[in-house]
Amino acid sequence: MMFRATITIGLKEGMLDPEATAIRHALGNLGFATEDLHTKKLFIVRFDAADLQEAEESAKAMCERLLANPVIHRYEIEVRQ
Amino acid sequence: MMFRATITIGLKEGMLDPEATAIRHALGNLGFATEDLHTKKLFIVRFDAADLQEAEESAKAMCERLLANPVIHRYEIEVRQ
Repeated sequence: MMFRATITIGLKEGMLDPEATAIRHALGNLGFATEDLHTKKLFIVRFDAADLQEAEESAKAMCERLLANPVIHRYEIEVRQ
Repeated sequence: MMFRATITIGLKEGMLDPEATAIRHALGNLGFATEDLHTKKLFIVRFDAADLQEAEESAKAMCERLLANPVIHRYEIEVRQ
C-alpha cells in the first residue's frame, strides 16, 4: 500500500534560530513588525508499506536516522494512505 | 489584534529540487525506498494587524517581498487569530 508521510521538523524549545532572527530583522527593515517568527522544514514522502503502523514506524526511522538531528530538532509525523 | 500566519513555501510544479533528490538517494542508501519526496519551508509568524483581511494581506506581502521567489516558488498562507 502506498502511504504519504508529512514530516515537520523544527528546533527544540530554547534552541537559537539564527535564520529566524535574520528573517525577522529583514522583515522589520521592510516595514513588517513581527512579534515572533519560527522556521520549520517540511518533508512530504510517499512510500510503500504493509500497513499504517509499518508506515508510521518507517517515517519515524527516517527522521531518527537522517532527516532530524535528535539533539536539536523535534519532529511531527502525519501518515495518510 | 495578534495574528498567527503559517506560510508554506514550496517549489512550483516542474522545478528541479536537488535537495529532495539528494535526500531520496540518502534514504535509499539507508534501505528506505521512496516513491516520491518533496521539501517545503514553513514560516510561522506572529504579528499585529487591525483585522483578518489586513493580516492576510500583510502575510502575502511578506511572501512577495522577502520569503518567496515568485519565479520558482508557490506559497500557501493560513492566518488565524
